[in-house]
Parts: sequence; C-alpha cells; structure tokens
Amino acid sequence: MDNSIGVGLIGTGYMGKCHALAWTGVKAVFGDRPRPRLVHLAEVDAGLAARRAEEFGFERSTVDWRVLVTDPDVEVVSITTPNAFHAEMAVAALEAGKHVWCEKPMAVTLADAERMTAAARASGKTAVLGYNYIQNPMIRQIGAILAEGTIGTVNHVRLEMDEDFMADPEAPFFWKNELAAGYGAIDDFGVHPLSLLQVLFGLPSRVFANLSKPYPDRPNREGGRRSVENWDVSSILFELGPEISGLMALSRTAWGRKGRIALQIFGSKGSIAYDQERLNELQLYVTSDKPSEQGFRTILSGPRHPPYDRFVPAAGHTLGFNDLKIIECHELLRAIAGEPARVIDFESGLQIEQAVHAMGQSHREQRWVEID
Amino acid sequence: MDNSIGVGLIGTGYMGKCHALAWTGVKAVFGDRPRPRLVHLAEVDAGLAARRAEEFGFERSTVDWRVLVTDPDVEVVSITTPNAFHAEMAVAALEAGKHVWCEKPMAVTLADAERMTAAARASGKTAVLGYNYIQNPMIRQIGAILAEGTIGTVNHVRLEMDEDFMADPEAPFFWKNELAAGYGAIDDFGVHPLSLLQVLFGLPSRVFANLSKPYPDRPNREGGRRSVENWDVSSILFELGPEISGLMALSRTAWGRKGRIALQIFGSKGSIAYDQERLNELQLYVTSDKPSEQGFRTILSGPRHPPYDRFVPAAGHTLGFNDLKIIECHELLRAIAGEPARVIDFESGLQIEQAVHAMGQSHREQRWVEID
Amino acid sequence: MDNSIGVGLIGTGYMGKCHALAWTGVKAVFGDRPRPRLVHLAEVDAGLAARRAEEFGFERSTVDWRVLVTDPDVEVVSITTPNAFHAEMAVAALEAGKHVWCEKPMAVTLADAERMTAAARASGKTAVLGYNYIQNPMIRQIGAILAEGTIGTVNHVRLEMDEDFMADPEAPFFWKNELAAGYGAIDDFGVHPLSLLQVLFGLPSRVFANLSKPYPDRPNREGGRRSVENWDVSSILFELGPEISGLMALSRTAWGRKGRIALQIFGSKGSIAYDQERLNELQLYVTSDKPSEQGFRTILSGPRHPPYDRFVPAAGHTLGFNDLKIIECHELLRAIAGEPARVIDFESGLQIEQAVHAMGQSHREQRWVEID
Amino acid sequence: MDNSIGVGLIGTGYMGKCHALAWTGVKAVFGDRPRPRLVHLAEVDAGLAARRAEEFGFERSTVDWRVLVTDPDVEVVSITTPNAFHAEMAVAALEAGKHVWCEKPMAVTLADAERMTAAARASGKTAVLGYNYIQNPMIRQIGAILAEGTIGTVNHVRLEMDEDFMADPEAPFFWKNELAAGYGAIDDFGVHPLSLLQVLFGLPSRVFANLSKPYPDRPNREGGRRSVENWDVSSILFELGPEISGLMALSRTAWGRKGRIALQIFGSKGSIAYDQERLNELQLYVTSDKPSEQGFRTILSGPRHPPYDRFVPAAGHTLGFNDLKIIECHELLRAIAGEPARVIDFESGLQIEQAVHAMGQSHREQRWVEID
Repeated sequence: MDNSIGVGLIGTGYMGKCHALAWTGVKAVFGDRPRPRLVHLAEVDAGLAARRAEEFGFERSTVDWRVLVTDPDVEVVSITTPNAFHAEMAVAALEAGKHVWCEKPMAVTLADAERMTAAARASGKTAVLGYNYIQNPMIRQIGAILAEGTIGTVNHVRLEMDEDFMADPEAPFFWKNELAAGYGAIDDFGVHPLSLLQVLFGLPSRVFANLSKPYPDRPNREGGRRSVENWDVSSILFELGPEISGLMALSRTAWGRKGRIALQIFGSKGSIAYDQERLNELQLYVTSDKPSEQGFRTILSGPRHPPYDRFVPAAGHTLGFNDLKIIECHELLRAIAGEPARVIDFESGLQIEQAVHAMGQSHREQRWVEID
Repeated sequence: MDNSIGVGLIGTGYMGKCHALAWTGVKAVFGDRPRPRLVHLAEVDAGLAARRAEEFGFERSTVDWRVLVTDPDVEVVSITTPNAFHAEMAVAALEAGKHVWCEKPMAVTLADAERMTAAARASGKTAVLGYNYIQNPMIRQIGAILAEGTIGTVNHVRLEMDEDFMADPEAPFFWKNELAAGYGAIDDFGVHPLSLLQVLFGLPSRVFANLSKPYPDRPNREGGRRSVENWDVSSILFELGPEISGLMALSRTAWGRKGRIALQIFGSKGSIAYDQERLNELQLYVTSDKPSEQGFRTILSGPRHPPYDRFVPAAGHTLGFNDLKIIECHELLRAIAGEPARVIDFESGLQIEQAVHAMGQSHREQRWVEID
Repeated sequence: MDNSIGVGLIGTGYMGKCHALAWTGVKAVFGDRPRPRLVHLAEVDAGLAARRAEEFGFERSTVDWRVLVTDPDVEVVSITTPNAFHAEMAVAALEAGKHVWCEKPMAVTLADAERMTAAARASGKTAVLGYNYIQNPMIRQIGAILAEGTIGTVNHVRLEMDEDFMADPEAPFFWKNELAAGYGAIDDFGVHPLSLLQVLFGLPSRVFANLSKPYPDRPNREGGRRSVENWDVSSILFELGPEISGLMALSRTAWGRKGRIALQIFGSKGSIAYDQERLNELQLYVTSDKPSEQGFRTILSGPRHPPYDRFVPAAGHTLGFNDLKIIECHELLRAIAGEPARVIDFESGLQIEQAVHAMGQSHREQRWVEID
Repeated sequence: MDNSIGVGLIGTGYMGKCHALAWTGVKAVFGDRPRPRLVHLAEVDAGLAARRAEEFGFERSTVDWRVLVTDPDVEVVSITTPNAFHAEMAVAALEAGKHVWCEKPMAVTLADAERMTAAARASGKTAVLGYNYIQNPMIRQIGAILAEGTIGTVNHVRLEMDEDFMADPEAPFFWKNELAAGYGAIDDFGVHPLSLLQVLFGLPSRVFANLSKPYPDRPNREGGRRSVENWDVSSILFELGPEISGLMALSRTAWGRKGRIALQIFGSKGSIAYDQERLNELQLYVTSDKPSEQGFRTILSGPRHPPYDRFVPAAGHTLGFNDLKIIECHELLRAIAGEPARVIDFESGLQIEQAVHAMGQSHREQRWVEID
C-alpha cells in the first residue's frame, strides 16, 4: 500500500462524519485502487479531536488545521467546516500542495470563491466540491436519457428544493439567519439544484429572482427578538439559453418537506420527473409507448444504473445518502489520478456561485440578470 | 313544476354536453329545487342541432342563438361556444333578461370582459363563469383548513397546470395557436389555477411573467409550416399581498401530464398539497401530530367533504369531472335564487382576466406589474 | 320516442339514487338509443315514494312494488332494495315479463340465487346484476392487455377489498352483522373482486377460506352487547385452473381503507396493478421496455380507454363512481336490444354466488373446496 | 485497541461484501465501542481470497475456512456462504469458541437448524442470523407504534414479498431451483417477512400453504430443459393466536417487483402500511385525527427514528440497504457484550425455520399445521 493516499479531515460535524465514512468505505465498495490512509484530523477542541480521530479511524489529531494542511503525510484535505472558513482553509491546503475536497456551498462571497478557484488553478492540484446529489445513479440515468434523446429536445425545466428546518416561526435566530451567511435559501441549498442543472444542461443564461422572508424576526437565544437578515424562500425564473425556460422554487420553511429536490423536465418526445425524498426512483414518460399504455414509469434504482451495482447486485434495494458520498469520494480519487471523473471542481463551483449572486442581484434590482 | 327554470344551451361540443349533463342530473343529485326544464338548444348546423336536442333532452333547437336568447321560455342561458363568441352572446342574453352561465375563459380581450361585466351589472341578472374546479369538495376542504388556521399563516404558494395536448411538435397549427386566441397557456388554462387562488386567497397583487414558445412553428393543415403566435409555456412569479410569495408554471406541452393542477401551500403550522389528476385526494401535513409520526396525510374525498355526500354516501368511491359541473350547476341555481353561492361571477371573472392581461404586460415589459 | 323503454325503480336509497342517475344520464352520455322513460317508483313509505319520484323524475310512485312490476308501462325494473328482497322481486318482475337490473349481492341463499336464475331463463328476458366495477374503462383496459398477451401467461393473482365502515369496535350491531345477511365480508363485498376475476379470467376452480371476527360482539342499539354472527374479515386462497394461484383478502374493518379493491396480476412478460381508490389509474410493467428504463407505468384513464371518451374528451380528467353506473346502464340497454354486452347476467351471477358459498363451506370444513 | 474484537469472514459474494462494509463502518457510525479488527478472510480460490482481503481490509486470507474458525485472533465469524454450508461452518465456529454471525436462511433442513441451535446453546457464545430488515428504523417505529397502542388491538395482518429474479421463464435452471435448496420462495425469502412478524408480533400459531410453480421447467445451461423442483410462488394463510388472521404472499417471479416487502397491519384504532421498495417511508392511519382530515400519513425516516440519527441528522435523506447491515452489526456487538440487543439469534431463527417447514408440511398435506 505504498501508493495509498494520505487523508486529512477538517471538521467532524455531520459532513465530517460523512466524509470519514466515505474515506473508510470507498475501497471495499469499489476495490479498484489503494485503501486511503486516514492520517490527520482537525477539530477545534482537543478532546473532541482525539475522540473523533479514534471513532473515525484517523492516526492523529490536532486543534490547529494549519498543522494538518502542512502535514507531509496528508495528500488530500477534506474541508467540512462552516462555509465562512472554506476559502481560507482551501487556499492554504492548495498552497501547501494538497488536493482539496471542500463541502458546499463554496464560500459566502464571490470574491472568496474566485480566490479559491485561482488557488486551485495555480496549484495544479485537484479541487472538488461536495455536490453529492449529482452522484446519484438516478441522476446519472437522467443524464443518459437526455443524452440519448429519449425525451427529444427539452423545452422546460422545473426545480424545487424544500426542507422544513426553519419552518417553525419560533425557531431561534442562528447564524444561518445572518446576512453574513449569504442570501438564505439560494446559497444554503439552492446550489444543490443548480449542481443538478449544471451536470444535466449547464447553468442558466439568465435569472429573475424574488426572495422572501416568511418570518421577519425570530426569538433571540439571549432573549427578545431579532430581525431575520436573509431570505428563507426564493422564487426564481431562469432560462437555459433561448430554448429552455424554467422555474426554481426554494424554501427552508416548507413544513413536511425533509429533503425534497424535485425535478421536472419536459421534452418534445417525453418527460422526466424526480423527487429526492425518493432518491432511488425516477419517473419517465415516453411517447414511443403504445398510446393506450402510456404513463409515467416508476424506475427503481438498480445494477443497470452504475455504480449502484458496486453496492448491491439487486435492484430496488435502496442506496442511501451516505452511499452517494462514497461514490463522490471515488470520483474524487479518479480525478486525482487524472482519470475522467464526474465532479464539480472549483471552476464549475465558481459558476454556481456566480449564478447565486446573479439571483441576489436580480432580486435587488428587480430585473433579469444575464450570466456569462 | 310551475317554477321550474327554463334552460337554453348554446354550443354542443365537450362543454355543451357537460352543461347538458349537469342540467339533467342536478335535480336527482340535490333534490332541493325544481327540475330545470330543458327548453332550447342552439348549434350552427340544423341537423346537428336537432340531433343534440334529442340526445340532451331539449324541447327544441335552432341554428340562430339569437332566437334562443330571446325565447320567453328560456330563463338561463348556458354559453359553451369558443371564447371569441362569449361576449356577444352573454351580453345579448343579459340584455334579453336572462341569467347567464358562461364557460371560461371569459373573453379574449379585456374590453370584452369589461363589456360583459357591465352588462351583467346593468341587467341585475345572475352571470356566472364555468370555473368548475373550485367546486371540488377537496378544494372546499382546503378552504376550510385554511379558514380554521390549521396550517397557520400561509407564506408561500406554488401552482402548476399542465397538459400535453400540444406537446407533439408536429401537431398541426390550429386556432388555439393564434394570437387572436390570447396569450396561450395563461388564458387557455392558467385561469383555472387563478380561480383556485381567488377562492382560497384572493388574486395576486403583482405578477412577473416569462412566456415561452417550445415550438416556434407547426405544420399547417393546408401544407407548409406556420409560426406559432402565442405561448404554450408560461412561468410566473406572483405575490398575494406582501406576506405570500408564489410561483405559477403552466404548460400545454408537458408530455404525460393530462389534467394536472398541482397546488402546494406552505404555512407556519403545516402544509397542503393537491394534484388534480387525483382530484379525490388531498395532502395535509400538520405540526400538531406527534413528532415521530408526522407526515403528509392522504385524505380521500368522502361524505365529510360536502357535497360529496349528495353523490355517494361512502368515502373513497370517487367523484368525476362531470360531477363537479353538477355541483356548479347547483351553486348557479342557488345564486339565481338569491342564496349564498360559491360561484365566480362576472365581477370576479373580470379580475381573473385582469390578472391574465397583467401577466401579458409583464412579459412584454419584463417587469413586475401591479394588479389593483 | 315511441320505442323508449319504460323504467321502474324499487328502492331509493344509495343504489336507488345511483340507478336513477344512470337512467337519467345514459341518453345524453351515449346518445345512441332512445331516452328511457322513468315511469314508476316504489318505496315503502308513500310520502318518501312521492318525494323521490319528484326528485328522480319518475312519473308516478307506489308503496306496493307488486303494482310496479305489473305496470304495463314498465319494461325494465331496477331492484335496489336490501338483498333479502332481491329474489322475490326479481322473480316476480321476470314472471311479469319485465327485464331486471338487480343490485349485488344477488341473494342471501344459494337457493334464492338459483330460483332467480331459473326465472330469468324461463322468462327469456334480460336479467343483469349491478356489478359496476367491471365497467371501469381501466378494468376493460386490463382485459385488453391480458387478451393481447402483453404480460404473457398469467401465473399469479392477488385481490384485496377493504373498507372501514365496521372498523370501529364500538359501532353498533346492525343487520349486516346477522348471519341472515350472509357470511359477512365475502358476500357483502367479496363479490366485487370476484366479478373482476370473472370478466378477466373466469372464476376460481377451487378455494380455501379462513373467515375471522375481529370483534366478537358489538353494542346493541337497545342496550347491552350482541354477538356478531358473521365474519368481517376473510382470507382466501384460490386457484384459477392448475396454472394460476391466487389470494383474496377482504376486510370491512380496515381503518383508512375507504373503497380499496387492489388487484395484482403477474405474468411471464409483465405485471399489472390496480387500486380502486384511484380508479382512474392503472399500473403496467412490461419487459419489452429497455432494461434500464423498465418500471411500472401509471396509466391515466382517457379517451383511449372507451367509453371514457363518451364522458370527457381529455385524458386524466377523472370518471367517478356514478359514471360507471351510467356505463352499466348502457350495457344493460345493449343486452336488452340483443346486442353484445358486457354484463354479469343471472347465470354468471349465480356462479359468483356458488363461489361465495364454496368459501363458506371451505371455512366450515377447513379444506379446499372445488367449484364446478 | 487491546479489546477490539477480531473478525473472520467466510464468503465474499454479495453478502460477504455487505458484512465487510458493516464491520468497516460500524465504528465511525456508532462510535461507542472499539473498532473491530478485520483479521481473517476465507474464500475458495486463493487468488480471490487474497484480492478480497486487500479490498475489504482483512489482514490475511485462506482457502480453508477451518483454519479461519480456529484462528486464535478471530473472535467472531461472519458466515456468508450458500445456505448448504451454514450448518457445518457455524457449528465448527461455535465449537471453536467463536461468536457467529450467519446469513439467512439459517439452513436447508430443520435438522441442521436444530444442530446449529444446539451448538450455540452448548457454546455459550453469541450466535445471530443476518435478518437485516428488522433493523430498519421504520420497522422499529412500527414496533413502537404497536407497543404504544396507537392503532389499538391488531386483528389482521398481510405480508407480501416479491422480486423478479426468476420471472423470466427462460432464465436458466440453477441451484436455487433444486429441491436441495429448499421449498423455494418460502425459505429463499419468505423468512424475511417472517422475521418482521417475529419481532412485531411473534410467529404464526398455525399456517396453511399453497405452493405453486409458475414454470414447470427451465432451460438447462448444458442444453435441454430441466424440471423445476421447488416453488417460486407461495400463498399462505396464517394466524397469530386466535385474535389475528393473516395472509402471506411470496413470489420470485413477480415482474417489476425488485425488493418489495409489503406489510399491512389493521387494528381497532388505526392501520399501518409499509413497502420496502420505499424503505424510508411508513404509512400510518389513526382514528384520533379529526374525521374530515383523516388519511394515511406518509412518515419519512428521520432522526426521530433511532438509530437513523447516527447516519444523518436530517430527516428524509434516506438510509440504504447497506446501512441496515451496519445497524445489525452494532446490535451483534451489543449482544456479544451482553447488552440488550435487537437480534434474531439461533433460538429465534430456529423458530422461523420451524414455521417454514410447517408451511411445507401444510402444502403436502393440504391442511392447517399448528406450530408450537
């Protein structure tokens, strides 16, 4: 295992654990390259750092992420801290000659995202963002259906992403409600549907956005109430070139929606529908079926939709959220090895950030904003 | 049956038959007022007129609708002709002192809609539009849920209406593709979701629209191709006062969608979802359920949702499209009798037309358009 | 309208109204034969009889059904009274030379059903049972799919029928809980799935039944409790000849099920699934689809599935329960006219009753019972 | 990591990989006990053994499973070979003083299952079967709902398990079609729904089975055709004590079903439905909801349903098949540590085998068979 890659992990929250599970499982699932070596883990508290290192199977831990990114045994750095830290950490890691796997959203400001992209370009290293949903075999299958022309020429697309973690008007104010965290729904998770658009069609050529605040203020943990500074709900029109019109609706206050990313694609010969709360399913309607027997087909994820087959050999047995991260990890390893890989690198990620900021600008100026 | 109302019917296509079935069935279903007397039927061809009169059970027929609207035995006139004729016929009927039941959309031009409304006002007669979907017991139930505050204060609404009758790019050009028929999707059927908005919330206070043409031209029946003049797809942002943001997406080229009117309503204490392709179902999520047992409930239409009980005494047995028209007919009879009725009269219908034209203006001027 | 058929109706409850609506609507919907003349209505109470005659549009009424069945103006008699009365009324009507349209279940005892069948045979008149679910265009489409061999050779069938009108253990004892009303679930509504089997495959060749009583007693309306005498739940194995195995599960105590008749059919080249709570939908899986795109198709009822087109010209707009009765009425008129018709006549209905009683016998004797 | 447990794995097919992934991931997911040490792997071919050891992260490999089960560094043995080998391997491992984690079905013959159970008893070691579906947080939630009496007293249960891996009549004959492999559907996968019954209610008190062969013969790989020796379809009636009736339907020839385990539970105050093709969802109907708002709730799996929270902190993000195995592995470790654990041990597994063989006996003798 001389050529096994050395891994550093910064951050051990939800996504930190998810990265750790991916690094741990990728070898047994795919089997096609050396087992990664879990070298170094960074967390702000020393005790927690040590405990997580033991849990996740890392050799050593630190409270100083700068020590980690300069550790000669570390070749790739997983960055899973809050977005405000992404730029500084990613740039430092790239400058230290490490590959970077950074969680989304890329950064709070466009300037930071540009700085990260420039650092990636300068380093020559692989720099990839954690857009795991593009790895879903069902999303890949949608891409294959589109590429084969099965539904003809697409003319209209609808996207929705909804959760309810801010749906309670009495949920206390926290950092995600600050303007410093971004526009709200669009950068917090609108980037996910944008990542799907990007891999399936490319990003919008122009956008028109209406951002809204369902609850103008929220209780402060320290008492009293505090004004909410960004927008939990966003309603967006877009175009993908002159041929395809679209809508995107986002809400973090949508009671009952837990992880919905709904996608509807309409073409000249058929339609596709998808809802990520059922991420192992895909709906396909084609006009080539006999007229009296046409209907949306519910296609269940299975070995015909690689790399599902690397996880389970039987269809309909369900992949989970964490499995998508293992696929992403594998694609990252392919990218690092210089092989063709399905990843959203910093260049592509910057384009997503540009779309996000175009939406913000559109809302402020109440007009269509073109995107290069 | 002295006081039974005399009915005239103009037009015997799809909606003409639907009106005839409603006039025929309303007595047996509701039983609470005299059986309407089917007096006079008008159709452009004399043979067809006679045949339809026999089929639908009308006493006599004519090729001249003006004879019908002045027939002293006729007290209420069903107008089910193409929209271009609505204004002239409705105004004539009202001026002849008849009640009017006119199919939607109201008229092609705003001027015509205004003229119709003025005639209704001047006549003192009942003038009602055929917005049958507001009569669905499930839509009434949504209204009841909103009124009771079950889902709290609403902050976001999404509407979709999709069919696929123009989805084939090689479907020949016909009158609905002419600008003379209106903007396309928005007046052809966008008025339906607008009617639902109107009864549930009131109409939008402002709109922003993006209209699009999936297929710039279509084969001409006479040979060659002809440019499509209006928009099969519409993407609209709207606001219902400052508190509620919304989106409305419309497509007549959505393969696989046959009669979809999807509605999503998000509130501070729950959510509602509805899809008219399953018009006997309603989805409700409420936060008052035990946390580990919360989920969208699929509520099946039943006798608890009047006037379902007038049709079938057992839940889950399904009402159909034509049943909604019988309910509408009954509400019309209530309105004529001066009783409180759930109808969209010409005044309300004119507001819908104003919203439609505001969308057209928004598209042309690429800006938000306010609606009074 | 000389040759219009004269109709008599006995009983004006739920199914009486449903028959009345069918007689009223059949002409306008189908248009292909004379409008039935609603002549005579019988109900036990004179006031109610008169009121219903006025509501339903019958010319005259009586409290003596024998007067009705001998009325020379009556040519066909709708019998919608409780099952205990079916035999006497049907036999009398047939003996009086009338056609008969009798609601299901046919009769409580096998002897009565045989007597009715003999009377029909002797009369030479048309005698048909009210199995309306076989008229659903989706059920017809299932028949077409089977006939065309689209799913190959069928090997396994599952049927479920569930409602919850007796699911409350504290619902008071009433006539349906008496042994005099039959075995319970199997004759009360198991005959419906049997009617579907009959038109799609023919009836079972042998059955094994296990009947059960979820609640041994119920509150008496007069006070105290009374033992339940028949079986609200039935679990049945069956075979359709040596090639097809099957199960049938019935419950009147299935909370949340309102009108479920679920059907699953498995063949060598595909599968079909159906649930009557969504009676405008059909699920079809075929192996001829591309492997990576196979899935159950949700087919929406539409004009491709006649006679849906007689009601609405656009797919996905929903037929209702009462519409199925109009189709049944039209088939009855075809049968009376000597045309090929999709009906379950008394001969076929007797076979259903024989299957019901074979199930009862199987339960008593705890063994497979063959059916001729 | 002195006290980390030493793991041996026999078999590296589908389930071998699944065990390996579970052993690899359990520490990072749960974090509450030492990381297992992957010591020894056995596979019949030396090259494959070495390759899998490298892929799965085992220290050493062998072609002789007897070497593995006597390796002093191995404390627990995963057995994932074809069922015919389970008994010999499990007994040997237990006799060597190892804990055993053996895949289902337990064994082909009842005698073998009894021998395994005796060996487990004699050894005092932990011996557990791989019934992973009982670990689904949604199944646990069903158990909680039942235990809390939310749906009252249960009176009726329906189970279905369907896949289509033998649905093609031209699929070649293979070992699963031999009588030596057991009865077919019932032991191949009927044991799964039985395991759900066992944890939710206990096993049936009596059964009546009808086994059937959709295709009497299949093509032989060597040419010609060979008679199928066991039953791809099974239809079973059962009782859970005198109070609960039930049905179980199993098919390996159900086109379109990929991993369906459908469960319907009816009680005096509500109902539960579940379908494993959507294993992150649960349907619950309760009569305590307001009558006009009652309906089956679709509950999405989430952190309120432990141990979902150990995988993802947000609801609706989907666990996968392999995640269930990690939960099972964790429960096994708890059992080994003498803590309360949710496992099906050999004693309980033997009961499942007894139920399987009672079904076989019932089919042969065509009568109800009681189970102790």
